[in-house]
Parts: sequence; structure tokens; C-alpha cells
Amino acid sequence: MSAGKHLTKGSPKPALPDDGVPRLYSMRFCPYAARAHLALNAKKLPHHTINVNLKEKPEWLVEVSPLLKVPALHLVAEKDQPSLIESLIIVEYLDEKYPENPLLPKDPLQRAQDKILVERFNGVFSAFWNVVLEGKNPDDLWPAVDIFETELAKRGTPYFGGDKPGYVDYMIWPLFERFSVLQFTMKEEYNSNLQRWVKISAWIDLMTKNEVVQSHFATPEQHWEYFRTRSTNPNYDMLA
Amino acid sequence: MSAGKHLTKGSPKPALPDDGVPRLYSMRFCPYAARAHLALNAKKLPHHTINVNLKEKPEWLVEVSPLLKVPALHLVAEKDQPSLIESLIIVEYLDEKYPENPLLPKDPLQRAQDKILVERFNGVFSAFWNVVLEGKNPDDLWPAVDIFETELAKRGTPYFGGDKPGYVDYMIWPLFERFSVLQFTMKEEYNSNLQRWVKISAWIDLMTKNEVVQSHFATPEQHWEYFRTRSTNPNYDMLA
Repeated sequence: MSAGKHLTKGSPKPALPDDGVPRLYSMRFCPYAARAHLALNAKKLPHHTINVNLKEKPEWLVEVSPLLKVPALHLVAEKDQPSLIESLIIVEYLDEKYPENPLLPKDPLQRAQDKILVERFNGVFSAFWNVVLEGKNPDDLWPAVDIFETELAKRGTPYFGGDKPGYVDYMIWPLFERFSVLQFTMKEEYNSNLQRWVKISAWIDLMTKNEVVQSHFATPEQHWEYFRTRSTNPNYDMLA
Repeated sequence: MSAGKHLTKGSPKPALPDDGVPRLYSMRFCPYAARAHLALNAKKLPHHTINVNLKEKPEWLVEVSPLLKVPALHLVAEKDQPSLIESLIIVEYLDEKYPENPLLPKDPLQRAQDKILVERFNGVFSAFWNVVLEGKNPDDLWPAVDIFETELAKRGTPYFGGDKPGYVDYMIWPLFERFSVLQFTMKEEYNSNLQRWVKISAWIDLMTKNEVVQSHFATPEQHWEYFRTRSTNPNYDMLA
């Protein structure tokens, strides 16, 4: 399950594993790929990881990911060895195919409500990118997170999934892990909002200690180093 | 199951139905709302429709649709009367809650592959909007449709769902219904592409005759009238 350096343009196509274990195409700092890593690890599913340089993409990437995005999950043991793309579709597939250690609730209404919550999280993602990558002001960011503070209070449980992390927790976590980079650019505003988010702050503490989260964790400093170098010469391999 | 005129800003909030039947908030020419109509009709599920003016939105819309979008499905018989949003989440909910007349395949891999195909259809949607609403050239549109021609040929069945329409067919249909408006602006280019798409053209003919499609159908002229008036004074009620 170990991953090597990020394969780049001109690199030879890696040979298929002969153990039939699925292969995840990833990039170490991609929050969408992180969703697939967390789901695979939460469900204890063996897999190989191939890291890909998204700035100088290997020519063979198109064969497993037609839109040249990660994550892509290559099902090498299935007929015709198909690949799946789109983080949420991959995670739902894993949850349906391997019912042990379920992530989504069984009840159709609760499933739909969890999916809607993750869909609404796109608002937090885009507000966050606007702040971190575009340098815009964070006025849209704080209210977008408020929705999740309110929802967690309403659910009355430590995690969105109940007594342990579930689908919503793992799908929104990758952004919250990166959220901490705001302490480097707007320390006071960041801290005052964290104090306001009583439930979310407690949840962040619990999630940070979770072993699945720790299986694919990077520190605020490492995420910041990635964001800092992202547009010029991304330091993809700092954890390889 | 009949729908009235589009309710607008200042209109009183409609009383809840006392029959426990779900209520769909819609706009007659919204292709995303059309997905929910088609799924409800394909699954023969009774429902009420409330049409909403999306230019002058009723104040109470926020209570059932926090992002003020349609479709929203109001589950009036469920505890706390929750609303679901996002067309694909609504359709998956209906398919899981009411297993009769299934739309998605049962096999997890086939389900994922169908969901990916619908996700990739977003490329056709955006290329089409660029042409129809922004007046851009259609160079991105034709290749985006080619993917679906190839896929239908590969499946070797009249419909994406096999011998009858399924999830992919109904989820992508609303755009193909609107596609025909291109005959008013680029007749020759439109016809020559249709001739090139042998499988898709046959599929369009079959779908047009389908009774579920006919349950929520508008003609090319009606869609064109909507697009034409859309940005200024949309003729929402022409079919009411």
C-alpha cells in the first residue's frame, strides 16, 4: 500500500500488479484523492497507490483517467480492467461492493441527506480555494462552515456519522485538514472562528487523532509548503 | 400530479398536501428538474408539482431549498418533513426507497460506470449552454456528444439501460430534448452531426416516443421560445 514518487511526463507506464489488488492513481496533496485513500483505509481494503505529477502528467494517464484527473481507481481484477473516476462515485462503489465497515447509512433518506451535506460542502471548498489560491477575502468562507457547525450540533453526536466517523466525516475531512494553513496567513481571524465553532473544533481534534485520518495525514506546515509551491514548482514528493 | 403556473415573489406559501404524497418544486423548462420528473414518472410514483419562477423567487422557497434551486423534493410524510435537493441525489433516493421499476443497475461496478457516464455528461451540458446562451461556437459540443455515441455502440443495446431506458437514459435525456433547438440557429451543422451519430440518432427517435419522456415533453419550438426569452422575461407559463 506504499506509494512512491510522483510519476511524470515521459515516465514508463507502471506494470500492472499481479496480485489483483486495485490500484489508486493519486497525488499526495489532492483533497479529492484523499477521500479515496480515507475510504479505502476506513474499510481496510488493500490497494496499491501510484502517485502522479499533475503539472507534467504521464502520457499513459489518459488510459485510466480520461479527464486526466485523480483519483482514479483501476480495478485490475475485473473483466476489461475498468477504471473508476470521481471521488464520490469511487467511495460509493467501494461502500456498495464491500459492505463491511460501512460508510454511508443504510436508510435511503439518511443516505440522501448525507450526500446533500457533502454536496453542499463544495461551497466551503470553493470559498477556501478563493482565499488560499486567489488571495480573496474570507467573508464567504466562515458562513459556509457555519452550516456544518449547525448540522453537527443538530445531530448531537461527536461525528457526523454518529459515535464514529462515517461518509460525511471522511468526505469533508480533507479540506478541514488543509484549513489549518489559514493560521499562517490570518492567525487571529482563524482562531476566533475556531473558538466560535465549538462542535467543529471538538470534531477536528477527534478526527486528527483518528487512525484512518493519520494513515493519510500531512501537517499544516506540509500543506502550506505545497500551496506555496503549487503554481510554480509544486513540491509533490516532500513525503515520498 | 398536475402543476400550475409558476409561483413568484410575494405569492403565498402553498398549503401542504394532506395526502402525504411528496411534492416536487420545479420549473417547467429546467433540465435538472426534468430529471426528477422523469424518474418519478418512470417509477410510477405519485407526486404533486409546484412550479416556481426562478427569476422572481417566492420568499418561502428557501424553506424547502436552501440554495434556492430546483428540483427540491419535499417529503411531507416523513418525520420533520425534510426536503431533498440536487437532481441526481433525488433520483438515487427514489431508486433506493422504491425498488420497483429500478433505474440504476444492481451491480456496484455497473452502477458506478453509469454514474460516471452521467457525470461526464456535464461536459455536454456546459458546451451546449455556451452555444445556446453565450453564442459561442460549437467546436467543443460535437466531440462531447461523440463520447455517448461511442458508449452506446459499445453497449450494443438500443438504450444505455439495455432493452429499455434506465438511469443514464433519463438523466441525459433532458439535454437531448433541448438539443433540437440548434436546428433554429445552425441547421446544416446540426443535421450533419445527427447523421454522423447513427446510434444516438436512433436513440433520440426511440426516446421521443417513450411514454415517460412524453409525460414531461416540450417541443423544439417551445424550448426555443424559453431560451429566447430566458434572460429578459422568461415565458415560464407557456405550457401551464
